[in-house]
Amino acid sequence: MISTVAMNESISIIGAGLAGSALSVLLSNHGFSNINVYEKRPRETDQTLPQNRARSINLALSDRGIKTLKAAGVIDEIEKIAIPMKGRMIHSIDSKTNFQPYSSNSDKHLLSVSRQLLNEKMRDYAERKSGDRIKFHYDVSCRDVNFRDNSFTLVNNETKESKRITTNTLVGSDGAFSAVRQAMTRQDRQEYSQSFLEHGYKELCIPAGPNGTFLLERECLHIWPRGAYMMIALPNIDGSFTCTLFFPFEGETNSFAALNSREKVDNFFKTIFPDAYAVMPTLLDDFDANPTSSLVTVKTYPWSVGSKAVLIGDAAHAIVPFYGQGMNAAFEDVLDLYQCIIEESKGSVEFSNEAFTAAYRRYQINRKKNSDAIAEMAVENFIEMRDKVADEMFVFKKKVEHLLEEKFQLRYISRYELISFSTTPYSEAQRIGLINQQILSELVKEANFDINKIDLTKADNLIKQLLGK
Amino acid sequence: MISTVAMNESISIIGAGLAGSALSVLLSNHGFSNINVYEKRPRETDQTLPQNRARSINLALSDRGIKTLKAAGVIDEIEKIAIPMKGRMIHSIDSKTNFQPYSSNSDKHLLSVSRQLLNEKMRDYAERKSGDRIKFHYDVSCRDVNFRDNSFTLVNNETKESKRITTNTLVGSDGAFSAVRQAMTRQDRQEYSQSFLEHGYKELCIPAGPNGTFLLERECLHIWPRGAYMMIALPNIDGSFTCTLFFPFEGETNSFAALNSREKVDNFFKTIFPDAYAVMPTLLDDFDANPTSSLVTVKTYPWSVGSKAVLIGDAAHAIVPFYGQGMNAAFEDVLDLYQCIIEESKGSVEFSNEAFTAAYRRYQINRKKNSDAIAEMAVENFIEMRDKVADEMFVFKKKVEHLLEEKFQLRYISRYELISFSTTPYSEAQRIGLINQQILSELVKEANFDINKIDLTKADNLIKQLLGK
Repeated sequence: MISTVAMNESISIIGAGLAGSALSVLLSNHGFSNINVYEKRPRETDQTLPQNRARSINLALSDRGIKTLKAAGVIDEIEKIAIPMKGRMIHSIDSKTNFQPYSSNSDKHLLSVSRQLLNEKMRDYAERKSGDRIKFHYDVSCRDVNFRDNSFTLVNNETKESKRITTNTLVGSDGAFSAVRQAMTRQDRQEYSQSFLEHGYKELCIPAGPNGTFLLERECLHIWPRGAYMMIALPNIDGSFTCTLFFPFEGETNSFAALNSREKVDNFFKTIFPDAYAVMPTLLDDFDANPTSSLVTVKTYPWSVGSKAVLIGDAAHAIVPFYGQGMNAAFEDVLDLYQCIIEESKGSVEFSNEAFTAAYRRYQINRKKNSDAIAEMAVENFIEMRDKVADEMFVFKKKVEHLLEEKFQLRYISRYELISFSTTPYSEAQRIGLINQQILSELVKEANFDINKIDLTKADNLIKQLLGK
Repeated sequence: MISTVAMNESISIIGAGLAGSALSVLLSNHGFSNINVYEKRPRETDQTLPQNRARSINLALSDRGIKTLKAAGVIDEIEKIAIPMKGRMIHSIDSKTNFQPYSSNSDKHLLSVSRQLLNEKMRDYAERKSGDRIKFHYDVSCRDVNFRDNSFTLVNNETKESKRITTNTLVGSDGAFSAVRQAMTRQDRQEYSQSFLEHGYKELCIPAGPNGTFLLERECLHIWPRGAYMMIALPNIDGSFTCTLFFPFEGETNSFAALNSREKVDNFFKTIFPDAYAVMPTLLDDFDANPTSSLVTVKTYPWSVGSKAVLIGDAAHAIVPFYGQGMNAAFEDVLDLYQCIIEESKGSVEFSNEAFTAAYRRYQINRKKNSDAIAEMAVENFIEMRDKVADEMFVFKKKVEHLLEEKFQLRYISRYELISFSTTPYSEAQRIGLINQQILSELVKEANFDINKIDLTKADNLIKQLLGK
C-alpha cells in the first residue's frame, strides 16, 4: 500500500477550495505552469451524505473578495449565481421586522453565494482557461509534510495507495485544520493558537415557496437576534434560504445540549423564532441530520518556511464568521500573495528560491496584522449581531452613523463600510472604527434618541479633529 | 515491522520524567498496581552524545516540589544530592558581586539539583519499593493515540517494532512536546497555544577547582544580568556550576546569530562576563557543541478526556524557566492529581471510570488557573532577572520588602516567598504580589533610597488596609 513513486513538481497547492483555486487561476493566467492542486474531497460531492451536509453552504462576498475574482477574470460568472443583500432584516420575537441598510448608499450590497457553486465555477474556469498548466487531483489526502527535502505523502482516499511527492513549493490552502500548517507547528519557534467559542452552529433550511418564490424578503441578510444567541438566513438563487443557528453548546436551557428531543426543538423554534418556524417544514429532520459544528479562531506565525511553503486563507488564520469576512480575507491573501510573487519574480514564470522567499516574506508581513485585526473584529461582531442590533442605543447610533456618512461623504466612513465595501486594510479599518465610536458616543449624548437633535457643526469639528481628511 | 499484539493495561504513564515517575510512586505506594511507565529515552543516557547534552541539567527545587517528594517518601535521598541556595549573587560587568538573600529568614533556601540524578533516584526508589506494581519501559515512543478505543502505538526505538496497546487510562507526562497532548489538540474544542520567546538558551560549564572546590560562591544562584540578556549559574555537588546563557536568537549584535565565530564568542564573554570567563576553560568547545534551545510557553484546556487521559507537568503547561517553577509546578500537579484520584476512588485501588472522570475534572479545574498564573509570572520574572536586579530602585524595593517581612511577619509576605517558600496557590500569590507592589511603591516615594526613612506606621496601615490579616 505504500509506494515510493517520487514525483517532482513545481507548485503544489494543497486544498482546491476557494483560495487554492483562485491562486492557481491567477498564477496560471500570468504564465506559471506545472501547478498541481490536491483536494481531499471527491470531485463531485454527494450532498445527501451526512459528512457533506450543511457546512458553511452560504457565503457573503464583499468588495475584497470581488476584487480578487475580478483579477482572476471570473467575476461575471459569479454574479450570475449570486443574490445581492442590501442590509440586515431584523426579526424580533413578536415577528416584527426592521430593515437596517448596510450603507447610506443603496447601491452597495453584499453578494449571497453558495460555496459549492462558487467553487465549481472557479474550478471549471480554471480547467477551461489553463490548458495543461494546472492539474486538479481529487479524493487525495496530504500527509507527513517534510520541509527538509520539501516532500509530502499523497494518499488516494479510495485505493489507499500513497506516493511521495517532492515539490519546489507547497501552498497550504487546506483550511482551518490544515495539514501543511500542522507540519509547520512542529517547527521550532512556530507561534500557534487555536481557540473555540462556547457557541457552535447548525445549518437549517427555509425552502423556496411555490415556483421558486422567496418566503422571506429576498435581498437581505436576515437576523433573529436573541441576546445570548441568534439565527441568520441568507438567500439562495433557487428561492430557498440557508439558515444558521449560532447557539451555546452547553447549558441547562437554551443550548444544543438542552435541546435533546424533537419536542424540545419544536417548542424552542415555535416560541423563539415564530416567523421562521412557520416557513421551516423540514426543521426537525434538518436539526437531527445536520452536524453541530464548532467555531474556531486559529492564529499562527510565520506563515512560510523559506521558499518551501506558505499558508493562505483559513490555513493561516481561521476566523469566526460574524463579519462575513472569512472568504473575503482569504481572497485578499490570494491577491496579495500573487502580487508579491509576480513582483519578486520580475517577469519570470519559473519558480526561483530567491524570488519566492522574498515574496512569501513580504506577503506574511503585509497580511498578518490585517488577519489579526479581522479575527478580533469578527469575534466582537458576534456580540453586535446577536445582541446589540436589538438595542435602542445601538440602532440610534447606526442612524446617526448613516447621517454622518451622508452629510460628510468621504470624510466619515463607517467601519462596516470600510470592511465590506472597500479594500482599506483591516487593521486600518479597525483603527478608524475606534475613532468613529468615540465620535458617535459624543454626538448621541444630548440627542435623546432624536436624529434631528444631532449637532452637525460639532460632528464636523470632531471629524476634522479626530479623523482629519 | 508493524505488529498487532494488543495489550490491555490499567494505568499507562507516557514519560518517565520527574512528574511521571513521581505519580507512579505515589499511586503504587497507595496500592494501585498494573502501572506501566513508558520513556522514549534509553535507560542509561550517554551524556557525551550531542542529543543528550546540556538541556536543563540543573533545577531549583522549592517548597512545592519538596512537598510532593515528601509525600512520595523520597525527600531524604534527594537532599543528599542537592545544594542549598540562599539567595542570588549578582555579578556586574566590572566583576563586582552583590548578594541578595531570597528571604529575610536565612534558613530558607532553594535546592540546586541535577535533573538526571533526581530522575535516577526517583526511578530507583520506584523500582525498589513498588514490587511489580510499576513497570518501567525505556527507549519506546508513543504514537497515534486514539481516545475512541483508548489505544496507542508503542514503537521500540531500536528494533522499530511496534505494538498497539489499549489501556484504561493514559497519563501524558511526556513534556512540552507531548504526544498525548498532540492527540488531544485534534479533538474538537480543545484550546491550545504555543508561544516562543525571542530569546533562546545555551548551557555552558564552570568546572570544579582542584579537589572538587567551588570556583564561585557555593550556596547561591549566580546571575550576570545584562539588560536584554543574562547568564545564570547553579552549583552541582561535584564542585562544578552549570551555566545558562539566555540570549536573543536574532539581531546584528548580542545574539546567537551574531556570535558566529569562536573569536566573537571569546571576545563577547571576555568583555561581558569577565569573572565567569576566567573560570570557563571549555567555553568555546561547549558553546560549539551544546544546542541552542528555544523557550516556549504552552497552554491547553481541557487537560483530560473523560477518564481516558489526563495531562500533567510540561505536557499540560510548559512554562519558561525564570521563576524556577517548571518542575515545582509539575510536582504540584502530581500531588493534586494523586489526591483527587484517591479521594474520588474512596478507598478502592482499582481503576473506575466514574472515579477517574471526577478526579480528572476536579484536578484540571484546581490547577488550570494556577498554571496560567505561574506561566505569566515566569515570563515577567525574566525581565526582573536580566534587567531589574541591576536597577537601583529595584534593589531598594527588595530591601524595603525584607524590612517589611521582618517587621510584619506573617502579615507581609513577598511574592517570591509565596511562590518559592510556601504552597500558597500560584494564582493567589500573583494577586498578593500586585498588592505588595502597590505598598512598596507607596513607601519608597519619600524615602530617597534611605531604608531608615521608610515610614513603618504608614506601612502598618497600608498592610492592614490592603492585605488584611
